Amino acid sequence: QMPRGNLETVHHRALVLAQLRKWLDSLRFREAFEVMRKLRINLNLIYDHNPQVFLENVESFVTQLDSVNHINLFLTELREEDTSRSMYPRPDSSSSQAPPPPPPPPPGVTKVDVVCDALRRCLEALDTHRFCLSILTTHVKKTVPELEVALQKVHELRVNPPGAAGAVSAEEALKYLLFLVNVNELYEHSLGTYDFDLVLMVAEKSQKDPKEYLPFLNMLKSLETNYQRFTIDRHLRRFRKALQHLSKCGEERFPEALQLIKEQKLFSEALRLYPAGGAPHKALSRAYADHLMEQQQPEQAGLLLWRCGEPAEALQAFVSGSSWRNAVSAAQQIPLPPPQLALLARQLAEKLMEQRRYSEAALLLDQYAKDCEEAIAALITGALWEEALRLIHMHDRQDITETDLKPALLEACGSQVSFLEAQAVTFSRHRARLAVVRQQKLKARLELLDDEAADCVDADLFSEASSVMTNSRYSHSNSRISSRSSKNRRKAERKKFSLKEGSPLEDCALLCALSDIISTVDKMREEVHGLLKALVLFQFDGQAQKLQLAYGEALHTMEAAVPEIWQDVPQQSQAPVTGPNSTANSITASFNQQKPAAAQPDAEILTPPKMRNGVKWKLAVLQ
Amino acid sequence: QMPRGNLETVHHRALVLAQLRKWLDSLRFREAFEVMRKLRINLNLIYDHNPQVFLENVESFVTQLDSVNHINLFLTELREEDTSRSMYPRPDSSSSQAPPPPPPPPPGVTKVDVVCDALRRCLEALDTHRFCLSILTTHVKKTVPELEVALQKVHELRVNPPGAAGAVSAEEALKYLLFLVNVNELYEHSLGTYDFDLVLMVAEKSQKDPKEYLPFLNMLKSLETNYQRFTIDRHLRRFRKALQHLSKCGEERFPEALQLIKEQKLFSEALRLYPAGGAPHKALSRAYADHLMEQQQPEQAGLLLWRCGEPAEALQAFVSGSSWRNAVSAAQQIPLPPPQLALLARQLAEKLMEQRRYSEAALLLDQYAKDCEEAIAALITGALWEEALRLIHMHDRQDITETDLKPALLEACGSQVSFLEAQAVTFSRHRARLAVVRQQKLKARLELLDDEAADCVDADLFSEASSVMTNSRYSHSNSRISSRSSKNRRKAERKKFSLKEGSPLEDCALLCALSDIISTVDKMREEVHGLLKALVLFQFDGQAQKLQLAYGEALHTMEAAVPEIWQDVPQQSQAPVTGPNSTANSITASFNQQKPAAAQPDAEILTPPKMRNGVKWKLAVLQ
Repeated sequence: QMPRGNLETVHHRALVLAQLRKWLDSLRFREAFEVMRKLRINLNLIYDHNPQVFLENVESFVTQLDSVNHINLFLTELREEDTSRSMYPRPDSSSSQAPPPPPPPPPGVTKVDVVCDALRRCLEALDTHRFCLSILTTHVKKTVPELEVALQKVHELRVNPPGAAGAVSAEEALKYLLFLVNVNELYEHSLGTYDFDLVLMVAEKSQKDPKEYLPFLNMLKSLETNYQRFTIDRHLRRFRKALQHLSKCGEERFPEALQLIKEQKLFSEALRLYPAGGAPHKALSRAYADHLMEQQQPEQAGLLLWRCGEPAEALQAFVSGSSWRNAVSAAQQIPLPPPQLALLARQLAEKLMEQRRYSEAALLLDQYAKDCEEAIAALITGALWEEALRLIHMHDRQDITETDLKPALLEACGSQVSFLEAQAVTFSRHRARLAVVRQQKLKARLELLDDEAADCVDADLFSEASSVMTNSRYSHSNSRISSRSSKNRRKAERKKFSLKEGSPLEDCALLCALSDIISTVDKMREEVHGLLKALVLFQFDGQAQKLQLAYGEALHTMEAAVPEIWQDVPQQSQAPVTGPNSTANSITASFNQQKPAAAQPDAEILTPPKMRNGVKWKLAVLQ
Repeated sequence: QMPRGNLETVHHRALVLAQLRKWLDSLRFREAFEVMRKLRINLNLIYDHNPQVFLENVESFVTQLDSVNHINLFLTELREEDTSRSMYPRPDSSSSQAPPPPPPPPPGVTKVDVVCDALRRCLEALDTHRFCLSILTTHVKKTVPELEVALQKVHELRVNPPGAAGAVSAEEALKYLLFLVNVNELYEHSLGTYDFDLVLMVAEKSQKDPKEYLPFLNMLKSLETNYQRFTIDRHLRRFRKALQHLSKCGEERFPEALQLIKEQKLFSEALRLYPAGGAPHKALSRAYADHLMEQQQPEQAGLLLWRCGEPAEALQAFVSGSSWRNAVSAAQQIPLPPPQLALLARQLAEKLMEQRRYSEAALLLDQYAKDCEEAIAALITGALWEEALRLIHMHDRQDITETDLKPALLEACGSQVSFLEAQAVTFSRHRARLAVVRQQKLKARLELLDDEAADCVDADLFSEASSVMTNSRYSHSNSRISSRSSKNRRKAERKKFSLKEGSPLEDCALLCALSDIISTVDKMREEVHGLLKALVLFQFDGQAQKLQLAYGEALHTMEAAVPEIWQDVPQQSQAPVTGPNSTANSITASFNQQKPAAAQPDAEILTPPKMRNGVKWKLAVLQ
């Protein structure tokens, strides 16, 4: 069946386009334009056909067309679309003769703006007066219409009427503008030029009631220039400009400005307008700081307060943001008396301890609270053994080694060993259960194939198959693993799966849990290394050996188990299922193989966790 | 065509195996054993058919066989292979009746050991004397043959000859052992029991010349027990045991022990044998420390020296290992006089500066060298502005803010901005070039299809096609990017590709380079954030704004470019090309689409770099 439509016309248009392309290539813009106009072919093609050639030959285009109306027609039809691709694509056979794709334009520069600016430059060079209306069009057509510039040009025509013959009068130009742009919009923009003559000129052309606009204009005229412009800008809701003008009206207008700043949240602009050191700048900084505190940005609030000479207020902001370095710096600048500084340091240290930032807490306690005992205790809590020992020696407090450090080391060692044992147990339980689940799924799939019960939903079948196993010993999930390692994102992901025996995605849940255990254990390398060194230093060789053995075994078991656990899972590094040697059967087979792993398992679950074997943690002295 | 071989036999064996399985399932071991022996079916199957059932019914197995010879036959034939899978797999149809796969054995436990131990337990409980030879076999067959235990049992038979009728004599038992094990091996192991009667017994049975072994045995007999055992162990090259016995020979033998320890690198064993605090332990620690220094383990050497009461020597080890915390701790324990401590701190700080560990260097300079100026300078070098400011306020040295901190801030800001500009330029150059290269490859491919010149190698064609472009402006590669970000691994990978224009894998090289720029720029988030805050604090709002803008634009440009740059590249998250809706054509199409990206690009190149959009770096006050 033939496609519908008039074949002759289609063919005809293709011929026309081919001809047009030839004309455009040979810069015969006039012929092209005439035909396009007649046959209603989108004029954008003149540019789109070869943008670079057009831009290099704008003058030729203008002189060939030699008509303000035609140029305006071209301009008003401009849009961003590339018609050489969308409406008039080249036939495929000629694609090899196509010009290379244009380099991507710099961000924020659009085709319409490029053409408008290029044409205006050319027209202004040729004859400002003759092409006046076209020039106005180039302003109006821009992505962000330059109405004020256009209006300004109209205003100039009124002030200095051109003497040249055939030149456009202000009247005519304004009429033309009103034809292109909505009158209210034009009126507003005329106000924005702060030029009352121009405003009146537009207002008179509009159907506006003079009783409405005259009193307003007269009120404005009575104001001081900057305040007048501020009032206009505020009326036009151009608050940034409004603030700029208001800031020039002297300090007595500052309360009004501050009002505006707060209402419109123009704080950062305002900071640039009021010179640093002055009273307004300081008031502004405080207001901004209040705003930033509300926005949960206490640190930036603190910086503003501090730099405007308010270290005490800055201190409060820094404290609430746990920005402890700035807090103590500001405190010392105030200067806070030593007992209060110590109190501050303790307060900050407490917060940092909550965030597990033990070494920073210890620094505060040591250097600002002058409490080396607490500092050492913080480091011991954080398992930062070497740093604790450094402070012990620095303050010559070897007694703490006996009373605190050594017992903590032994406790840490014991708890690490038992944690590792628990992880190993959970790991092998999940691993065994995973093998069982996989076996069941395989069996269920085979039975499915046997029975050809294709209408039976897989998931139901699997849960049935595994419900047989309810009495096995693998029925309780691990509740401890996740507490230590996993990220929030993973947590959310894992919620989709349940470790409950017989749940449809139990294998995914097991993969997740196994992966988590491996990551958790792998992350302990640095901590175990530090603990082993400290144990050796204090002659706890036996305990250290036990830990080294337990950790080494845990890592070894898990690393060795990875290929088995992630065996059926397609690896990222694997070759794609399709390839030069693949057949329809092999593709189907690989597809069938992939499918049963899970409904739609995320890539992350299917990737075995990376182990950082590059991080050396073992001690030779314990081997 | 039929498979070769005697079909009847094959069928017969299948029937036999089916019968065997039934017998084994009903615990009729005797019938099974007889048939297997007759038909030379591997006896391992008795265990492999269902390991758990066998282990639970070992006694029934023994009583049914009721023959030492048969039990020995079974034992000697044992091997690790699972014959129920390798030699005698079940026919597929019966797989559903198969027992569940056994839980994976704990690591280090092998099948042969399990069977030997289970059988021995049973045989010893039934009749030690009657099954004497089988019990010996269970010792000899273990993965690590327990020859000494076996020999010990033979020796007991000689010392206490059993009175029971039919009991095996020592003579017979030894003969049997010599039948199972090489005589020299047995002689060596008899030496290892330190039982000279046993040695003589074995030696007499062997063809050894008494003139050879008698003098040696007599010499040994003359030695003190521990030294005697040491001598035997050394002779048998059991150096660990040798050291254990030597360590019991008193301090006068310590030099000999130290010699052995050094020769055989038995340092960690030795540390356990010599009590801490004694002179040997200290000498040992020094020797071990020397060894560890040679092994490039200065920190562990330092720990050993420190704990055995040699802080000065420990200090040297810690210094050479840049283990600065331990170094200053040891130094203060010596105690080093303040000027030398200061010198040490400077020396360590210099090393740390070379490793870009600026905050640690600053701590040393501040707290141990008592040189706050140098400390602050170190922090400024490391762009650690807040910490520098903290030290400035701590030491009340605001003058440094003016002389050093502020100029450094401005310099850092300027260099960051120009670095970002350079990166942006290189980025857009590579991006544009990538588009060109892809276009060329596409074109080349289309031409290839047109000409059906399938015998023409792609790479040649591509380089030909791109050689046309040699005059373009994208001919120089970036030399600066790699210096900052990339890891060694990536570097090695990238070596395979060349950014040289027209090189066969130029697109891969461009992808690498683009990915590197993105990673480099993305890594700057924290640094830029810190710099912005410091700039704001010192009222350098203009510069800060410029930096914030430049960095924001760079990040935005790169993020926006990612989909275009990694467009044709198969994403990991994408659905596989095969799927329920795929057809042979769609698979082929997706394959064709993937192929031209590169010969065999690594997965890493094809993955767009991850941007850490979670790391907030922008300041609200600068917006």
